[in-house]
Amino acid sequence: MYMHKLERSDIMRIRNVKNAKQILEETPYCYTVLPEKGHRFFSNDHPIHLEIGMGKGTFLYEMAKAFPEINFIGIERYDSILVRAIEKIGEGLPNLKIIRMDALEVASIFDHSIDVIYLNFSDPWPKARHAKRRLTSEVFLQEYDKVFKGRATIQMKTDNDGLFESSICSLSTYGYHFEEVLLDLSRTDHFNIPTEYESKFRSMGMPIHYLKAIK
Amino acid sequence: MYMHKLERSDIMRIRNVKNAKQILEETPYCYTVLPEKGHRFFSNDHPIHLEIGMGKGTFLYEMAKAFPEINFIGIERYDSILVRAIEKIGEGLPNLKIIRMDALEVASIFDHSIDVIYLNFSDPWPKARHAKRRLTSEVFLQEYDKVFKGRATIQMKTDNDGLFESSICSLSTYGYHFEEVLLDLSRTDHFNIPTEYESKFRSMGMPIHYLKAIK
Repeated sequence: MYMHKLERSDIMRIRNVKNAKQILEETPYCYTVLPEKGHRFFSNDHPIHLEIGMGKGTFLYEMAKAFPEINFIGIERYDSILVRAIEKIGEGLPNLKIIRMDALEVASIFDHSIDVIYLNFSDPWPKARHAKRRLTSEVFLQEYDKVFKGRATIQMKTDNDGLFESSICSLSTYGYHFEEVLLDLSRTDHFNIPTEYESKFRSMGMPIHYLKAIK
Repeated sequence: MYMHKLERSDIMRIRNVKNAKQILEETPYCYTVLPEKGHRFFSNDHPIHLEIGMGKGTFLYEMAKAFPEINFIGIERYDSILVRAIEKIGEGLPNLKIIRMDALEVASIFDHSIDVIYLNFSDPWPKARHAKRRLTSEVFLQEYDKVFKGRATIQMKTDNDGLFESSICSLSTYGYHFEEVLLDLSRTDHFNIPTEYESKFRSMGMPIHYLKAIK
């Protein structure tokens, strides 16, 4: 490797935003108090795609603009990051909601209502003793089972080899199979909306791994 | 990529060997006529590991030396390549046999007797219309089902992204899950005996992909 590997935290680190909580509470498409299980977020029956760890929201916002017939929900646990997303999303879109919450809580809100889950550049938790914290560990896959409507579909992107490798193992062991695997998304013409984090890595020529898993 | 990608054929190409057929026929541990289905290759009940496409035999020979309690069988369809393997193996080892045959014929010889299949740097058949010829396509996985004794185990190494990606898809779709996946075997301390082909690639710093699939 001819360059120092950027730390995820270098890119995702964000200054603490004053009044973050207040900004979130005043944004009509943002939930800071968790809705009841089975809550209807949209008034139509379009498919719902969920991004877990939406970060600053570029992916979610661009996807929602590109696919008005799909409803998008993004979750993120950090107030200050969500403020950055809200600055970008502005007035909002009818097919986009965001929720401040932890990934482990998804089954307390979504009751077999989600069609696709996106995991974009999730925290790799590289240490073996933290493996359960990875968003593709069995602990999370069990929660996703309660969330998916029918056929489970997970689409994942990461620059992290270890997370990609362990996700292929844990997803397949849990019963998922892979419809698509790309070791370097950047070198293909696959449809892709990059995240903020991804754009920096791509510009440095780092490979982006992608998979689509089905159960 | 800072270097031209070596073609597989550049490395594997081998001059035609005169009297190749005769040399094979005179080598006691080499089968040129296919044995009957269920043939006992070894006089003990040790596990049998099968390398499909053994090439010049370095992997098979070194594995057989390293693991005397495991029986190894290598198959390869090209006479001239097998002669190179025989030159290396010499007098042979009690736990090593080689067969000149095509991969598609495995089920006509092995009857639920194989414990592990190795696929090392198999032909990637990059064109979509040749996908069925890849050694991890459904066509071959169906044949392997008839060959495996109990739990099916496939260990695969390749430098080819497309073959690795399509193998992860086809193996998982066929019911295999992955116990190990490494995007670059060279950067780990995983136990590994390199093939001739692999050694050249490793010396050039090219990543070697590895997986262990179970069904």
